[in-house]
Amino acid sequence: MAGTDHRRARPAAAETEGEATARPPQPAVVLVAPQMGENIGTAARAMLNFALGDLRLVRPRDGWPNIKAVAAASGATEVLDSLRVFDRTEDAIADLQRVYATTARPRHLAKPVVTAHEAAREMRAEIAAGRRVGVLFGPERTGLDNDDVVLADAVLTVPLNPGFSSLNLAQAVLLVAYEWFQAADEMPPPRQEPEHGSRPATREELVGLFEHLERELDEVNFFRAANKRASLVGRIRSILLRAELREADVHILRGIVADLTDARRRRRRKEGGS
Amino acid sequence: MAGTDHRRARPAAAETEGEATARPPQPAVVLVAPQMGENIGTAARAMLNFALGDLRLVRPRDGWPNIKAVAAASGATEVLDSLRVFDRTEDAIADLQRVYATTARPRHLAKPVVTAHEAAREMRAEIAAGRRVGVLFGPERTGLDNDDVVLADAVLTVPLNPGFSSLNLAQAVLLVAYEWFQAADEMPPPRQEPEHGSRPATREELVGLFEHLERELDEVNFFRAANKRASLVGRIRSILLRAELREADVHILRGIVADLTDARRRRRRKEGGS
Repeated sequence: MAGTDHRRARPAAAETEGEATARPPQPAVVLVAPQMGENIGTAARAMLNFALGDLRLVRPRDGWPNIKAVAAASGATEVLDSLRVFDRTEDAIADLQRVYATTARPRHLAKPVVTAHEAAREMRAEIAAGRRVGVLFGPERTGLDNDDVVLADAVLTVPLNPGFSSLNLAQAVLLVAYEWFQAADEMPPPRQEPEHGSRPATREELVGLFEHLERELDEVNFFRAANKRASLVGRIRSILLRAELREADVHILRGIVADLTDARRRRRRKEGGS
Repeated sequence: MAGTDHRRARPAAAETEGEATARPPQPAVVLVAPQMGENIGTAARAMLNFALGDLRLVRPRDGWPNIKAVAAASGATEVLDSLRVFDRTEDAIADLQRVYATTARPRHLAKPVVTAHEAAREMRAEIAAGRRVGVLFGPERTGLDNDDVVLADAVLTVPLNPGFSSLNLAQAVLLVAYEWFQAADEMPPPRQEPEHGSRPATREELVGLFEHLERELDEVNFFRAANKRASLVGRIRSILLRAELREADVHILRGIVADLTDARRRRRRKEGGS
């Protein structure tokens, strides 16, 4: 998706006067009547982890600013610095065109119910179409009340262990933000090549290693019976091939074989000379 | 998928004597040297939210039990009640056959790097094939050290805002557990096992092989300079881990080490006796 990396790199530029569009289009996170300052801070941190920056509070219990929120944000102060506080949920979402209400479990409401995973994809599509979206989260103890849920277009729910479904506020924000970030490229990121230095070993280097090891094993009669040699050699070569050895790995392994055997050989030479 | 709902509903039954298999097969969560009791508690809560129950601690800074952990677990006490404490990471993962090391960003290590999303699918497949898996998480401030990462088969990383990538310990656990839970319903068919006989080696068998080889290498002064030992040991262990050794492979490799070195030792004994 064009521009995705750019968006990730400059996620949450604080809005400044006359530059209200500095932040790339992204979902607003609306905390309705949050109780604990700590949870506001950890929610801000979770947002910034996934490049979200538009935080809105409705009637925070302990007012705003809140020193505990700042401490808990662990450096995500740019989110707190630019947050906005509202008296009513209606005002907090006034500019939004699609709103999700997060609830622990679907209620009997005439609303579509989507998972965080589905909501992230929907929100990407909405924003790509130029619309403004946001997600409501309720107070820690009670969750959103029905009046707030009614204001939303859809209910967002996180599939949870039905035997233990109490999810901390900041963790609910984290999962929604995580899914949003993940949805940036539906194509999974390319699996990274393990970095183990140097280039892959050539077949010649591998065979050199195989034969070096097998020679030494012959010397100590490792294979015992001649009829077992071929299958064991095949087995050992398979193990080494599976390791996808690099040039430097071959060097190390040949060093191991040499060092383990040279001590024996030196000793033998010494004896032979005596 | 048959059994999925059942598994979800009874996630983390504590192990009791004679009923060690009561918990359905699932990844172990291994917290290495966790500092804050609160984080152990919130990690336990996050696990139970997604039906995980096998929590293992390696050298918790403030010992165990920890009253702050219990308070922070918000009722997820069944996870804390059944957790196990270990002195060494090697012991904590001894029974596991595939291990992931969680790191904030990929390091230059000879390991494949997977996202939490990919790891969850891999772990589902491994467990469906009857294998035991686990995920390592490092201490809050520093993350896993290289010695612990080296013990793992792969590095697990969560894609984050590069401008703000400090993820709280419990939130890292939450995301891994969330992906695990999400993956329940999108399991790919178990990947076809290459037929190379016997079962995958346990971590205990691998560590036994590592230590056997390293002991012999110490004897012949393979590492030369003491300050190079750690990086070379890490390199050698990585090579062997990449080979995805089976039980029988470990047997063969230990046989090689023993035979290459026993001849020397026998000779020495003979000399000593003369």
